[in-house]
Amino acid sequence: MFLRNAWYVAAWDYEVLADTILERLILGRSLIVYRTEAGEPVVLENRCCHRGAPLALGRKEGDHIRCMYHGLKFAANGDCIEIPGQERIPPNARVQSFPAVQRKRLIWVWMGDPAQADDTLIPDTFSIQHPGWRTKPGYKLFRANLALIADNLLDFSHLSFVHEGSLGGSAAIAAATPEISVIGTRAIRIVRRVSNVDPAPYHRRLVAGIGKINRWWDYELSVSGMFIMTSGAEPVGQDPGNHAGALMFHSCQALTPASASSTHYFFSHAHNFALDDPTVTEATYQSIAAAFDEDSRMIEAQAKVLGADPGRALVGIVADAALTRYRRLVVAALEAERAGSV
Amino acid sequence: MFLRNAWYVAAWDYEVLADTILERLILGRSLIVYRTEAGEPVVLENRCCHRGAPLALGRKEGDHIRCMYHGLKFAANGDCIEIPGQERIPPNARVQSFPAVQRKRLIWVWMGDPAQADDTLIPDTFSIQHPGWRTKPGYKLFRANLALIADNLLDFSHLSFVHEGSLGGSAAIAAATPEISVIGTRAIRIVRRVSNVDPAPYHRRLVAGIGKINRWWDYELSVSGMFIMTSGAEPVGQDPGNHAGALMFHSCQALTPASASSTHYFFSHAHNFALDDPTVTEATYQSIAAAFDEDSRMIEAQAKVLGADPGRALVGIVADAALTRYRRLVVAALEAERAGSV
Amino acid sequence: MFLRNAWYVAAWDYEVLADTILERLILGRSLIVYRTEAGEPVVLENRCCHRGAPLALGRKEGDHIRCMYHGLKFAANGDCIEIPGQERIPPNARVQSFPAVQRKRLIWVWMGDPAQADDTLIPDTFSIQHPGWRTKPGYKLFRANLALIADNLLDFSHLSFVHEGSLGGSAAIAAATPEISVIGTRAIRIVRRVSNVDPAPYHRRLVAGIGKINRWWDYELSVSGMFIMTSGAEPVGQDPGNHAGALMFHSCQALTPASASSTHYFFSHAHNFALDDPTVTEATYQSIAAAFDEDSRMIEAQAKVLGADPGRALVGIVADAALTRYRRLVVAALEAERAGSV
Repeated sequence: MFLRNAWYVAAWDYEVLADTILERLILGRSLIVYRTEAGEPVVLENRCCHRGAPLALGRKEGDHIRCMYHGLKFAANGDCIEIPGQERIPPNARVQSFPAVQRKRLIWVWMGDPAQADDTLIPDTFSIQHPGWRTKPGYKLFRANLALIADNLLDFSHLSFVHEGSLGGSAAIAAATPEISVIGTRAIRIVRRVSNVDPAPYHRRLVAGIGKINRWWDYELSVSGMFIMTSGAEPVGQDPGNHAGALMFHSCQALTPASASSTHYFFSHAHNFALDDPTVTEATYQSIAAAFDEDSRMIEAQAKVLGADPGRALVGIVADAALTRYRRLVVAALEAERAGSV
Repeated sequence: MFLRNAWYVAAWDYEVLADTILERLILGRSLIVYRTEAGEPVVLENRCCHRGAPLALGRKEGDHIRCMYHGLKFAANGDCIEIPGQERIPPNARVQSFPAVQRKRLIWVWMGDPAQADDTLIPDTFSIQHPGWRTKPGYKLFRANLALIADNLLDFSHLSFVHEGSLGGSAAIAAATPEISVIGTRAIRIVRRVSNVDPAPYHRRLVAGIGKINRWWDYELSVSGMFIMTSGAEPVGQDPGNHAGALMFHSCQALTPASASSTHYFFSHAHNFALDDPTVTEATYQSIAAAFDEDSRMIEAQAKVLGADPGRALVGIVADAALTRYRRLVVAALEAERAGSV
Repeated sequence: MFLRNAWYVAAWDYEVLADTILERLILGRSLIVYRTEAGEPVVLENRCCHRGAPLALGRKEGDHIRCMYHGLKFAANGDCIEIPGQERIPPNARVQSFPAVQRKRLIWVWMGDPAQADDTLIPDTFSIQHPGWRTKPGYKLFRANLALIADNLLDFSHLSFVHEGSLGGSAAIAAATPEISVIGTRAIRIVRRVSNVDPAPYHRRLVAGIGKINRWWDYELSVSGMFIMTSGAEPVGQDPGNHAGALMFHSCQALTPASASSTHYFFSHAHNFALDDPTVTEATYQSIAAAFDEDSRMIEAQAKVLGADPGRALVGIVADAALTRYRRLVVAALEAERAGSV
C-alpha cells in the first residue's frame, strides 16, 4: 500500500539529460522519464498500449516517444499520435501520463489523482541550489520497504551504533531524549541535542583538531517520505538556538518507494560554511554516502530477518516513541486517501 | 498449455555428437538426446525411474544409458535392462522414450501420443542441406513464451523499427499491407512486398554499392511454431514473382517451447547465390543472428512488462490481423488435441 | 519437518574463534554462534527482539552481544541487559538462547525443548581428537534436503558409480549384499564387505603399488543425521573381522539441516596408520572432499529433478532396503516428538 496522492522525487536533474529516456520503478509502476525540447520533464508509463513493449527501448522524437517495436508514436500527454500503416487512431490508444515538474534540481512526479496535483505542495528544498549553500547530490537504492528506512530516520539513537565511525562518535546521542511533535496531519518533527561531546569522525574530516562540541538535529519527516533537516556542531557553552560559529548543514532527503521491497533514496547534505572550498563539499558528500551504506547494510539485513517471520512480535522500547506516532500518521493518511477525502 | 501432438526440433545435429548426452528442456520436460552406435537419435526423459537422478549425468554404453547414481541401465526404448545386485527387473522399471528422427541436420522429437508420430508430417527444410543453397545453422534461447515470438514473426512491420539497422532499413515495410491467408487448420501464410526502397544494411554487407530494390517475404508459420520463408531483394521494375537477378533466401526457423517462459529458436537462413563465397554465408548468418538478438531484447523486455500485469488489456491495431487469425488457429488446435480428435 | 529434540553440529571449533560471531542457519532458524571469554560456545537467535536487526552485525562485548542498530545488549542466556536511554528493561526483552556444548572440536546445539538437552546423548566422535588417530576436518553445504543425503549414505552401491574414480574402483561394491539392522529406535547399522577387489583410486594415493584387497564398511546413521563408520582395506585372504595390516578409517559425519532444501555437512575421515606422515592425512582429506563434491553434484541435480514433479512415483529396487527401514524410523521419531513422548 502506497500513498499515491503525494509528490515523489522521480529523479535528479542530471539523471535525465536532453536525450535520456530513464526507466524507473515508482510505487510499483514501471515509468519512463524524459524531457521535451523545452526541457520540461515528462513521465509516462513504460508500456506501449499496443503489445506491451517497453517505451524505455523507444526513441525520442522531439517532444514525443516512438515505440521501437511496431512504431506507435506517443505525445507527452500519453496520446498515441501515429500508427504505421493506418490512418485512424483508436481513442483508447494512449499510455498513462503523470504530472511532473522540476524544482531545485529534483524531478517530482504525482502518482495519484491528477486533479489534485498541486505543485505548491512540493517542499522547499532551497539548499540544493542556493548561493549561500553548497552540496553534491546523491542517490542510492535501498532493498527494503520505505517503512524500515523511516524507522531509521525517526530514531537517531542509531547514530551511536550504526554510524559510530562516521556520523556518530558518541554514546551520548543514543542517551539523549528527543523532543517529538506532530506537524499537522502529515509530518513528525524531532529535535535532538547533545552537549560537550566528542566530534564525529566526519567533523574531523572538515576541521582539523576540532575539540568538544555541542550538536543538534532538527528535522521533519513527512508521511510520504520527505526528510528535511537542519543540523550542526557548535562550540561548547552556547545557548541552544545560538548557532554562531557552527558547522551547519541543511539536508534534503527524499524516499520514493520503488516497490514493496525497494526504495529510492535521493539525498543532498548541504553546508553553509567554507563555500569556496570544494573539498568540504566532497568530504561532506562522501561521509553521508558512506553513512547511507552503513544504514542500507543494516536495514537490508533487518528486512531479511523480518521477512523470514513477518508475523512475529517486536519488543517496544522508549526510543520508539517517534516511530509509533509516525506510523499512526501514515495509517491515517492511507485511510483518508482510500476514503477519497484527499 | 503446449500442443503435444506435433514434431518439434530438439537439437541441431552438431549439438549431439557420437559421445554427447545433451540435456534439453522441451514442453516443460527435461530430456536427454543422444545417438545410438548407428547414429540414430534417441530422446529419453532425464530422470532415472529409481530415485530421480538425472540421466544427463549418466554414461553412454553402446546404444544404452547407465544412470551413474546406482547403476541402472536403460535401452533406447526406455526399458531398464540392468540393476546392479539383483536379477529380476520390475516391469515398471523404465523411463519415458520419445519418437525422434533426424532430417536435414535437425533432430525432431514427438512429445505427444507416439501412435500419431508420423514422420511424413515433418516439414521439408530442404535448403539446410542442398547443393543449390548455402547456410550456417544457428540457435538462440529466448526467455519468453512462444506466443510472443510468434506475434513477432506474424507482423513484419517490426522490421522498420526493431531491425532498422540490420534487416529493415525502410519505413515502407511497416507501411505495406500484407496478404494473409489461412493454410488448412494449422498454418498462416503471409506475403509482404515493398517496391523501390533502400536496401537493408544486411544487403549492403552482401553487395557493395547496391541501389534501390524491390523486396518480398513469403512465409508460413504453423501452430506448432515452424516458420518457413522465401524472401529476397530484386532489381526495381520487375513484375512481382519474377525473381531474376534477385538476392534470394530460404529460411527455416523452428520455435520449440522449453517452458511457459522460454523458447528454443533454431534457425537457418540459406542463400542460393554466391555459392562459392563462404563470406556471404557467414555475413548472412551474422546479420540474422544479430537481428534475433534485437528481437530477443525487445521480446524479453515485453514479456517482463506483460508479466507485471498479465490481465491488462492491449489495444488492437490494423497490423494485428495475422496475429488474431493465428491465435484462433492455435486455440482450435489445442481444443482439438484436448478433445482427442488429433 | 525437522526433528528438534536432538543434538546437531552447529560448527567446527575453528569456525568460531575468540572474536568470531558466526551466522548459521539451522533447522530453518538463523542463529549466531560465538564464545564467552572462557571459550564456552553460545548460540542465540540472529534477531534482536527490538526491531529484528541481525545480531550477526553486532559487537561482542565480553560474554555479551550488543546489537549495533540501536544498542541493546544481550547476555549469553538471551536476556537483554542494557537499553540505551532507558533504565527499565521490559521482561520480554530477550532473544532465544539454545543449549550448546563443544566436544572433540565440534560445537553442538540443541534446537528443541531445553529441558531435554542431555549432553550425554552426544555421540562419541573420539577419532577427531585422539593420539591414535589423525584427521583433517571438513565442511560442505549441500543444496538438498537431508533425506536425499541420508539415502546416499544408506546405499553404498553408489560407490561403484558416483565414486568410480575416487572411493569406488570396483563394480563388486554395488553387487554385494549388505547386512542391515536397526539399532534401538533411532539408528540403522549397515555392514558391507567385498573380497579380492581392485583398490580404489584413493587407496592408490596412500599406498604405492597396492594390490587386490578385501574391503569393509561398518556404519550407523541416526535419525538426526549422525553418521559414524569404521571402514578399511586389508590384505586378501584374511577372515572377516581380522583387520591386521589394514588401512583403517574412522569417519564422523554430521548432517545438520539448514533448511528444507539445504544441509550442512561436517566431516572427519580419520586414519590410524602412518600417524607421523601428514601427507597421508592430507591425501585422505582431499579424497573424501572430492568424493563429497561428486555426491553433491549428483544429489543436487537429483533434488532439482524430483522438485520438478514432487508427487511422481519412484520405482523401488532391492538396494533400497536400508532406505525404507530408515525412513520408517524417521517417521516414527517425528511422530513421537509431535506426540510429546520425547
